[in-house]
Amino acid sequence: MSKKRKIITLTTDFGTLDGYAGIVKGVIMGICDTVSIVDLSHDLPPWNISAAAWIIGNSYPYFPQGTIHLAVVDPGVGSKRRAVAISAHDQYFIGPDNGIFSSPLHGADPKDIRAYELNVDKYWRQEISTSFHARDLFAPVAAHFAAGVELTKLGEEIDSTSLTKMPLRELRVKPNRVEGTVAYVDRFGNLITNIKRDFVQNAALCQVGKRSIGRIGHSYSSGDLGMPVAFIGSHGFLEIAVSQGRADEKLDAGVNTPVILFEGSTTPT
Amino acid sequence: MSKKRKIITLTTDFGTLDGYAGIVKGVIMGICDTVSIVDLSHDLPPWNISAAAWIIGNSYPYFPQGTIHLAVVDPGVGSKRRAVAISAHDQYFIGPDNGIFSSPLHGADPKDIRAYELNVDKYWRQEISTSFHARDLFAPVAAHFAAGVELTKLGEEIDSTSLTKMPLRELRVKPNRVEGTVAYVDRFGNLITNIKRDFVQNAALCQVGKRSIGRIGHSYSSGDLGMPVAFIGSHGFLEIAVSQGRADEKLDAGVNTPVILFEGSTTPT
Amino acid sequence: MSKKRKIITLTTDFGTLDGYAGIVKGVIMGICDTVSIVDLSHDLPPWNISAAAWIIGNSYPYFPQGTIHLAVVDPGVGSKRRAVAISAHDQYFIGPDNGIFSSPLHGADPKDIRAYELNVDKYWRQEISTSFHARDLFAPVAAHFAAGVELTKLGEEIDSTSLTKMPLRELRVKPNRVEGTVAYVDRFGNLITNIKRDFVQNAALCQVGKRSIGRIGHSYSSGDLGMPVAFIGSHGFLEIAVSQGRADEKLDAGVNTPVILFEGSTTPT
Repeated sequence: MSKKRKIITLTTDFGTLDGYAGIVKGVIMGICDTVSIVDLSHDLPPWNISAAAWIIGNSYPYFPQGTIHLAVVDPGVGSKRRAVAISAHDQYFIGPDNGIFSSPLHGADPKDIRAYELNVDKYWRQEISTSFHARDLFAPVAAHFAAGVELTKLGEEIDSTSLTKMPLRELRVKPNRVEGTVAYVDRFGNLITNIKRDFVQNAALCQVGKRSIGRIGHSYSSGDLGMPVAFIGSHGFLEIAVSQGRADEKLDAGVNTPVILFEGSTTPT
Repeated sequence: MSKKRKIITLTTDFGTLDGYAGIVKGVIMGICDTVSIVDLSHDLPPWNISAAAWIIGNSYPYFPQGTIHLAVVDPGVGSKRRAVAISAHDQYFIGPDNGIFSSPLHGADPKDIRAYELNVDKYWRQEISTSFHARDLFAPVAAHFAAGVELTKLGEEIDSTSLTKMPLRELRVKPNRVEGTVAYVDRFGNLITNIKRDFVQNAALCQVGKRSIGRIGHSYSSGDLGMPVAFIGSHGFLEIAVSQGRADEKLDAGVNTPVILFEGSTTPT
Repeated sequence: MSKKRKIITLTTDFGTLDGYAGIVKGVIMGICDTVSIVDLSHDLPPWNISAAAWIIGNSYPYFPQGTIHLAVVDPGVGSKRRAVAISAHDQYFIGPDNGIFSSPLHGADPKDIRAYELNVDKYWRQEISTSFHARDLFAPVAAHFAAGVELTKLGEEIDSTSLTKMPLRELRVKPNRVEGTVAYVDRFGNLITNIKRDFVQNAALCQVGKRSIGRIGHSYSSGDLGMPVAFIGSHGFLEIAVSQGRADEKLDAGVNTPVILFEGSTTPT
């Protein structure tokens, strides 16, 4: 491990009211007091693995090498789902094996992924509850790893292709158009799709559900106030926004709403 | 003081919108820049001392020795309530003497508690407002303490039995049943009671308000989706949850709702 | 730069759900891993520059010398608004030039302010989105500055009087009264005005909108429960609160509501 300060990010559905995220930090800092802890999100809708997966996928590329991402949205806690640690993209992912790490897994060659089932209980808290594994198992394991214990000591290596992945969101590329969907709606009501940057260059028109957007712009400010605009968002995907307004409400759209992008000279069918 | 990095936790009802918690951190870091600050909660309902006390009581056992817990839910700010620092359980508690530290106080032998009234104004900010003692008094005192100033310098020792404690939540142990109450409802709608782990082992049936729960399970996943289940929660107490649902709504229950746990062969009266 | 640990504060309207603030921290820590990052607020109403400006103005005086305040409420992102770094009051302010730093600018002699247009793209991320300059431009610049790069390297010095400032909130001082307005409403519903401490000493009566408050008190606790009280708040301005209640609702008041403070022997007209 390098001598740089280790970073552990946290992504949970614990909220910020009850102190649960603070407890996780207390456990980590009791084991490794030199780590920096960064909250990615604690406000996820309870048990929403797919929102958590989207946030992790969108965030990890901006963290330095060696960062440890601890993510616990865990409807199966107390059941037989595996606890895993994953090494991919020179970063580390620790949490339940329930699809929460789909994005880094989809994005890496299986040969470049190492996975471990966390089954060495001497690195856990002595008493394990059935409902708070973030505190009792995942936080101690992440902290011991940050403190220098190797992954091979923390668990047994498993076949990385056996890890749970959520199916990739479907994208259909046709001669004159690309058909995708809304993948995420953020706090501003912006609609982030799964249509990659490359398709957007020659686009002339975008259809969101039953609504058409003629303005394929450069940024939020390309639209008139209150009017929808489609552009390449900060995530590198086609994004639909309303300048100083909410696109989800304006266009009556949400996660999974179909989005079709038409090329230059074509028109919607 | 050990050489380990000092931790100060924060528990307030300041919210996260107005910047007040950030100001408290600025004051602390201006005095002691090596401290790690951990938010337990800032989202407490305004002036809700008892929710704050529950969160502190549930959190401090997971923090390392020497942690300083700064807690300010302070409806009496500007009145004559005392400002105190308390040493107990090898940790420290700084805030108003209004019951917010009831849990660590109830959990310790009075002989093992030291208490100090914070009345040495040279460790405060120069100007003291009447409404923001977290910034002007508690944060500077906690920071000076983290930086190495001894408690005996920060205040005058007082009789620890004079500290304000909220009454313990009543628990009635009868031959064939235990009668307690809901102590806290968390963000998931889980009902956390004051009935300890030991009573749950032989239980056959649990009554929450007027509703009976026949399923005394092992974990959240012991229940069918949407059905209530009672089990030993992560806090070590009987907890009632609904798998991927809200027990408070399903059972029409909240803080102070009576909960009765019946032994193996008994039935509710 | 001193050897003390650098502090970067964050003030945004990104919310805490989507992970955007965490991404900004990841970018910062990838460049400078010894910095302490403090959240002032991420929950600002989207695009509300004036609330952001109020929070920054109210917070920076409590941070130590050398603190870097990164603030991004940026409705003009992607348009031609300037990106700036400002040195004032021995602290630093980095963000869009849209009035968000009005308070430290109003509070300093223009001679004591240095301003730089951030136009040196080698200190930015390689790829610049049109919608997330906090991640791609402001965070890297702040981190490089915290790591020791001088402001003169990060941008071109500009005339500090050309910086965007929001107009000062009007205050009319008359022979027997002072007329101001509500500047901010905090999470407790407290009304914070722009009437300074000095005017409050001899006041006998306060009028908020059409309602009169006869009680000019010392603190929140000066009022009876549920009754409004006017006093010098922690910000150093006349504040109207309701003891354990919401003054904004009780008095039907909000930002910009007129507030008149009458001297000792006068009565409202």
